[in-house]
Amino acid sequence: MTSPAPVSARRDLTDAPLLVAARGGTPRHTPVWFMRQAGRSLPEYRKVREGTPMLQACLTPELVCEITAQPVRRHGVDAAILFSDIVLPLYAAGIGLDIVAGTGPVVAEPVRDAAAVAALPELHVEQVAPVAEAVRLLLAELGETPLIGFAGAPFTLASYLVEGGPSRNHERTKALMHSDPATWHALLEKLADTTLTFLRTQLAAGVDAVQLFDSWAGALSVRDYREFVLPHSERIFQGVAEAAPDVPKIHFGVGTGELLGDMQSAGADVVGVDWRVPLDEAARRLRAANPGSDPVVQGNLDPAVLFAGEDAVRREVSRILAEGTAAAGHLFNLGHGVLPTTDPDVLTAVVRQVHAESARS
Amino acid sequence: MTSPAPVSARRDLTDAPLLVAARGGTPRHTPVWFMRQAGRSLPEYRKVREGTPMLQACLTPELVCEITAQPVRRHGVDAAILFSDIVLPLYAAGIGLDIVAGTGPVVAEPVRDAAAVAALPELHVEQVAPVAEAVRLLLAELGETPLIGFAGAPFTLASYLVEGGPSRNHERTKALMHSDPATWHALLEKLADTTLTFLRTQLAAGVDAVQLFDSWAGALSVRDYREFVLPHSERIFQGVAEAAPDVPKIHFGVGTGELLGDMQSAGADVVGVDWRVPLDEAARRLRAANPGSDPVVQGNLDPAVLFAGEDAVRREVSRILAEGTAAAGHLFNLGHGVLPTTDPDVLTAVVRQVHAESARS
Repeated sequence: MTSPAPVSARRDLTDAPLLVAARGGTPRHTPVWFMRQAGRSLPEYRKVREGTPMLQACLTPELVCEITAQPVRRHGVDAAILFSDIVLPLYAAGIGLDIVAGTGPVVAEPVRDAAAVAALPELHVEQVAPVAEAVRLLLAELGETPLIGFAGAPFTLASYLVEGGPSRNHERTKALMHSDPATWHALLEKLADTTLTFLRTQLAAGVDAVQLFDSWAGALSVRDYREFVLPHSERIFQGVAEAAPDVPKIHFGVGTGELLGDMQSAGADVVGVDWRVPLDEAARRLRAANPGSDPVVQGNLDPAVLFAGEDAVRREVSRILAEGTAAAGHLFNLGHGVLPTTDPDVLTAVVRQVHAESARS
Repeated sequence: MTSPAPVSARRDLTDAPLLVAARGGTPRHTPVWFMRQAGRSLPEYRKVREGTPMLQACLTPELVCEITAQPVRRHGVDAAILFSDIVLPLYAAGIGLDIVAGTGPVVAEPVRDAAAVAALPELHVEQVAPVAEAVRLLLAELGETPLIGFAGAPFTLASYLVEGGPSRNHERTKALMHSDPATWHALLEKLADTTLTFLRTQLAAGVDAVQLFDSWAGALSVRDYREFVLPHSERIFQGVAEAAPDVPKIHFGVGTGELLGDMQSAGADVVGVDWRVPLDEAARRLRAANPGSDPVVQGNLDPAVLFAGEDAVRREVSRILAEGTAAAGHLFNLGHGVLPTTDPDVLTAVVRQVHAESARS
């Protein structure tokens, strides 16, 4: 269990709509999945999670397999995404943190200086062996449905470590990057190593695509993103490409309308777009930022719209499908994660509509 | 106290840098003030506020006058902004709400249907008479320093009323606008009336400029902003222009890079820009959105940078001053409010630097 499984673990899913679309091809229908589709919106999730703390659940292979597969069974989505948490590899590496209900990740000793960065443990493959095992169980469970691997990007991880938990303003994180760039870059290098080890483990076990979550990157200006974040995310995408050249790479953040071109040039095949920028405008920005590129986008239904009733949801889904045709490929998704109080039947209806409206004869 | 004071209450401050810059003229130096400059970052504020709940403080003229004047005395900023709270006019109108420490505004009975909207009380001038009195005290207190009036925009007010308090995702607010547009627009019309009454009261008492805070407008797509928000904010700016044609109007929100042009065309003379978009790019967007306009911008130092030490702050202030010259006018400010743990001496140093670097011989 300490060495990665052979790359041949990966299934041959050449025609899977998600993978076809991610590679810029023409899928039989627009693929759809939802960030946080495996989670609190599902009663079957709440039932199996009962009594098991989040991080423990993420390291229990049978539970990860069951939770990851639930939304595929229920909604018929075009991809599963590995049930995990952004801070899981940090926890697995031995950093003192916990996920507190109603708060989020809480870090025992925030990382705010060079000594703390130097003392940070790095992740070893065997520490996430249960995740590799969960991936192997899922390959058997999922049939023809692709499995997306999951990792947090260095900036978002750093924000949790520096702030000590979730933050509205990221002031300590930004203070560190601006006041002590050397320590900042040392921190992000270590976090990029950990993220890469985590993703390589998932790739070796056979995931079919990966998504790098830089959820809070939208808190930064383009200037700061380029100087303090981009090189590290770029190194992760390079490492993924070397480990598994054919596996599509998705890059996601919230409020990143200003950063879309840079998030693509970091090495992503697919760029996530929240609801603030329409997909046709996002495709235009990506082409302008990287001339000659054929951008593939993911998104961009506002998760709040799922609370607005059937008619409003149908209108928005149709609009987004139409706007998505301006890109070389479109993975239908929400602009951010499913909110916990979302009615799961509404999600199922979105999947049906996306498939019906985008079906190619 | 029930009828507005005559317009002649307003001082003649033709040469005040803030007013010159807001009108697109050439001030003797770039004016600087800080959103939430009167607040918890100042020990003298914490002292005078001790034991007085927020909304009560906002309705105590002598206290409003003292708190509003504190940052002018300490930092030498180029404007005072009336100490108030976004929800104050709702509270004054008789809506059951309170500001809970550590949470923010909490609304006793959230407003989520047509009946609740119909039952909403409107603001009458006499209910904010203490605010008018505070303005009159301030005109005597402030000497040559302009006083900026303060009001929340209908969308941001609606979010508090519909959600029942601060919200991360605004899902109930967006659900209402998309599922029942008639009720939504009725709500925003009432809120626009209340905001306008509040601003007219301040204008009649003599404020020299007004800022409309649509703090959470950046949660919306351009499409939704135009359909559900813009017409109501536009009506407020028209009302302000009719009440006091020469008083500059500032329009502010966070994460509004996509909305800058629309926030200007709503009728603003000055558009606030947070730190995500550099001011030269903001000026370009405003000129593109409203050809022939000479945009005046406000911003855009990231409040988190104030924690990064003297060198980083100096570099950022210089950069922003340089980028601001691309606009027809620049009011130096933060991209959002002063964070409560900010060192006030850092703010004073920013004021000195802005004045020194921008002084015209």
